[in-house]
Amino acid sequence: MKNFTTLQWKGGIDGCLELTDQRKLPAQFITIQCKTPDELFDAIKTLAVRGAPAIGVAEGFGVCLAARQIKSSKLSDAVKLIEEKADYLSKSRPTAVNLFWALERMKKTACGFAVKNPNAAIDDLKQRLLAEAQKIYDEDVQMCHNIGINGEKFVPAGGAVLTHCNAGALATAGDGTALAPVFEAQRKGKKFKVYVDETRPVLQGARLTAWELHQAGIDVTLICDNMAGVLMKEGKVNAVFVGADRIAANGDAANKIGTYSLSILAKEHKIPFYVAAPSSTFDLKLKDGSQIPIEQREPHEVLNFMNIKTAPEGVKVYNPAFDVTPAKNITAIITEKGIVQCPTEEKIKKTLNS
Amino acid sequence: MKNFTTLQWKGGIDGCLELTDQRKLPAQFITIQCKTPDELFDAIKTLAVRGAPAIGVAEGFGVCLAARQIKSSKLSDAVKLIEEKADYLSKSRPTAVNLFWALERMKKTACGFAVKNPNAAIDDLKQRLLAEAQKIYDEDVQMCHNIGINGEKFVPAGGAVLTHCNAGALATAGDGTALAPVFEAQRKGKKFKVYVDETRPVLQGARLTAWELHQAGIDVTLICDNMAGVLMKEGKVNAVFVGADRIAANGDAANKIGTYSLSILAKEHKIPFYVAAPSSTFDLKLKDGSQIPIEQREPHEVLNFMNIKTAPEGVKVYNPAFDVTPAKNITAIITEKGIVQCPTEEKIKKTLNS
Repeated sequence: MKNFTTLQWKGGIDGCLELTDQRKLPAQFITIQCKTPDELFDAIKTLAVRGAPAIGVAEGFGVCLAARQIKSSKLSDAVKLIEEKADYLSKSRPTAVNLFWALERMKKTACGFAVKNPNAAIDDLKQRLLAEAQKIYDEDVQMCHNIGINGEKFVPAGGAVLTHCNAGALATAGDGTALAPVFEAQRKGKKFKVYVDETRPVLQGARLTAWELHQAGIDVTLICDNMAGVLMKEGKVNAVFVGADRIAANGDAANKIGTYSLSILAKEHKIPFYVAAPSSTFDLKLKDGSQIPIEQREPHEVLNFMNIKTAPEGVKVYNPAFDVTPAKNITAIITEKGIVQCPTEEKIKKTLNS
Repeated sequence: MKNFTTLQWKGGIDGCLELTDQRKLPAQFITIQCKTPDELFDAIKTLAVRGAPAIGVAEGFGVCLAARQIKSSKLSDAVKLIEEKADYLSKSRPTAVNLFWALERMKKTACGFAVKNPNAAIDDLKQRLLAEAQKIYDEDVQMCHNIGINGEKFVPAGGAVLTHCNAGALATAGDGTALAPVFEAQRKGKKFKVYVDETRPVLQGARLTAWELHQAGIDVTLICDNMAGVLMKEGKVNAVFVGADRIAANGDAANKIGTYSLSILAKEHKIPFYVAAPSSTFDLKLKDGSQIPIEQREPHEVLNFMNIKTAPEGVKVYNPAFDVTPAKNITAIITEKGIVQCPTEEKIKKTLNS
């Protein structure tokens, strides 16, 4: 289905990470190459690559970029550098948990390798790290596939789905999270429409999701975010599918700003509201959504669009990048391990441990 | 308070209508002059002048522009031309009722004058029409003032108001509808904040409301439309104030797209939701909101952001310019004649007839 590559490692242990530059879509389809942790940090911060699972995968490879900078031949120095650079990369964006998860996994891999192989060469460590980063990538592709299989039954045949932001192929190594069931439904020959919120201020819905779905030949209609309510009132939407950036133990889910409002509108109109996310998006240390850190982004995203001013100088801006949808507004969380209906802490643990 | 002119007639009976060109704000503050009904039709359709009351006032003067085109010296020919041109002007935009109300009033004025003064000169008719259009203008200024006085008590001292689109001075001849209570509260020395939805696709909130409030020295914060829900959840909003384009007999109110969603979010968060509109916005012939015609606008407004393409070619668009908020979601309708709490047909009639 996916006819482009969101991100991929190019070359061997001293290779680089190639990213589709999502800042330029849909006007231009170009790739950029990150050769240092600094370049990747910048690419993540400026949204060249975004989407919780894709950021997690990218950060895995980010540790391989850090490994390229090892100067010492001592394994202990190398591991120390890896840990420092991983901590640096972890500061690129605060809300999505997948990146912390991926960086922790890479740090453990480095440390574990050094403990088990005290006399190994630096290149062996690099090889081990690249293999682990590639494993995270491969798992992500498989996870998307399984979310698609698990969630496909919720895509209403002959009906319409509404989605927000981009939780598609561009947000993952594979087919996406929220869009994986949609692509799977298409594969099965189901007919349906997808309405896409344009998703201000960065317009991931208009620029990325509409582009992905249109490329795939799916019937897609773009709306402004403020049109979702009337669309639901008119009976045009049968299900809402969104992704997540972090899910607390009780099922409260952080996702792109506007998701919370959508969940209330869906509840008002008795429309099922599905959150699709891999197990790496759960942060079971957090009791509920109030503990999820929310990234506040720069005012210029709201005050301008592509350097054209939309509002007068001196006006203040509130620009949270995410909001939290309470578990009670979520019909089901679709994971690669199974479906959590009416999520609770107990049900989530049961599914994740299955 | 108002330090600019939304619209004004320049010159005598053969003068023209000068408009602040709202398509250019806030980057440029320029005025345009309409000398023919065609020029005004275009100015209204392309949103150089917008806002239900301002359109009503403009259409009143539009009949004076039609009168400029009278060639015949026969009063009956003149009235026929006036009626034809008024019917033409009525097709400029379908949802706001004020323009139909103003055009009907001008047609009646022309007809009544001709009946009472069968031997009058054409210039006398023109004079009468200009006086009536100016009367509509003056009434609009007074109406805004009275809405401000009536609604000021709902502006929470030390709190914050959320507004959508532009129902301010730019939408009227006077201080505005939804913003009139805000300006009145400022005059009384109340301290408060105003959050403004940017209001996609045409950004009347970012471009017009933020500009007006900032010019007036009011503490204004701009948000994207999809941020209103989380703002309410965080307890940052104490009241919502919006305008209306047409209100049915039962209190259902059509207003800028996104208003309906806001009303549901306000209900969910137990925040009072006020609609401010003059009596000319009521259409008592319509039983309820389902009978209000909703303007569908061109896809390019959604596919582009300030003329920069945001979405791929070939994607469909749904772009209703308005939606209808049911009366049950409205805490009160603030009119120049008084306040209708929990609006019903009976209460509305009582207030409008007072």
